[in-house]
Amino acid sequence: LNFLKLLKNAKKNSNSDICVGLDVAAYGTRNRFTISKEKRKIKVIISLIEQLSPYCCCFKANRQYLLDLPRVEIQEMTNKAHELIRPIIIDHKLSDIGSTNEQAIISISQEGFDCFIFSPFPGNIKETTEFGHKLNLSSIMLVLMSNPEAIWMKNALINKIPFYKYYAKLANENADGAVVGATNHVGNQELESIARLIPNKTILVPGIGAQGGEIEKIIRYFGNNALINIGRSIIYQKDPIDALKNYNKEINLIKSTFH
Amino acid sequence: LNFLKLLKNAKKNSNSDICVGLDVAAYGTRNRFTISKEKRKIKVIISLIEQLSPYCCCFKANRQYLLDLPRVEIQEMTNKAHELIRPIIIDHKLSDIGSTNEQAIISISQEGFDCFIFSPFPGNIKETTEFGHKLNLSSIMLVLMSNPEAIWMKNALINKIPFYKYYAKLANENADGAVVGATNHVGNQELESIARLIPNKTILVPGIGAQGGEIEKIIRYFGNNALINIGRSIIYQKDPIDALKNYNKEINLIKSTFH
Repeated sequence: LNFLKLLKNAKKNSNSDICVGLDVAAYGTRNRFTISKEKRKIKVIISLIEQLSPYCCCFKANRQYLLDLPRVEIQEMTNKAHELIRPIIIDHKLSDIGSTNEQAIISISQEGFDCFIFSPFPGNIKETTEFGHKLNLSSIMLVLMSNPEAIWMKNALINKIPFYKYYAKLANENADGAVVGATNHVGNQELESIARLIPNKTILVPGIGAQGGEIEKIIRYFGNNALINIGRSIIYQKDPIDALKNYNKEINLIKSTFH
Repeated sequence: LNFLKLLKNAKKNSNSDICVGLDVAAYGTRNRFTISKEKRKIKVIISLIEQLSPYCCCFKANRQYLLDLPRVEIQEMTNKAHELIRPIIIDHKLSDIGSTNEQAIISISQEGFDCFIFSPFPGNIKETTEFGHKLNLSSIMLVLMSNPEAIWMKNALINKIPFYKYYAKLANENADGAVVGATNHVGNQELESIARLIPNKTILVPGIGAQGGEIEKIIRYFGNNALINIGRSIIYQKDPIDALKNYNKEINLIKSTFH
């Protein structure tokens, strides 16, 4: 798969485990973390990709932030990432019945993404990944979300197994990676279980920075499998390059202590 | 809320409980149920709305089928529904953290929809509905999906309560309606429990027609709360108006036996 090859090379090439979240909010849609009035969203995104690609290994765009962009601008974004030899993930949280998921995956392929994030909620996990593979797309499955409201996933049971473990096993068998939050409502026990159940796949970890997640925990449990997503705490800083470089330093320092 | 008023009037005015699913697949994206090569998707959608609005009470568009449409065409669709005094739901299955859900809801409002469907997976149910209300949008929550792969929801437990009951209670407290599949993997017991837990809100029922759901069960348990979604079994028929009218006849006949 394109994504896995691109990611492996980009990690080596950039000496970074960071995936930059391109969550650019339109002007006027919230108080903090929006672009200024004069700027166009796609221009801001392209500029971020150009500035940050030497220092990160991947980009992630969330579908909910792209709803106001025409397809041609989404393609401009994915083309720019590929021009700079970085993979780009669509954080779609796809969550529908089979035939509808297929329609989304066809669009995601046409838009030029390398990988999509999907939800196990509708249950058609294997089918969704297989259809993605037909179009050379990798799949990453939600296993344990980063927001505190998602804490029910820790306590829920299916076939007497905690949900996040049930999902982790399914993700390991039927997806190319998993999303695992590392914010402070997620404990070491959960992270350890997930790391054991998904030993060799990409673990995309949101929640660092704005959501308060801890880097040390991520490295300890997921090591080189970790793909650490940071969005607002890089892209909305005065100097995004500097912010990204500082996170790289912090991560690489922690990694060195585990060797 | 706009949606509830529009829906109530449209049900009376059309003598129909059917919501037509405008799931128009682009040419070449699958073997069956796609439009012909010469047609443009938005033209097909507009024509369906014009033809079918006298005989249905609502329209529903699925986000995954709209990814290739620019915003202006989506607005053309919602404007057409409103011109003909029908509400239109976006079947988004929104499933993200709070700040990201808000970005989607702002776009959904700008696109002109009256109501959105969301997933309880991330847990932020109340917040999602409340943010929708600020923008005069109603919310409908996934409770029990229509696809057979979603059967795990019947057996999973949270706080020792079956998942679909836990969700039904939350939907009744924190959403304006619920999605409940009535395909044959969903039994009478589940439907009865849900009807008891959500006595006075809209129950959007997908799965009739192409997915094989049963109308009688829906009417028995949800009565006038039922909003019966039919997509492919109407819009891809040789004569969509005729297909819709036949479903109306069938539903109204069954309803009359319950009086």
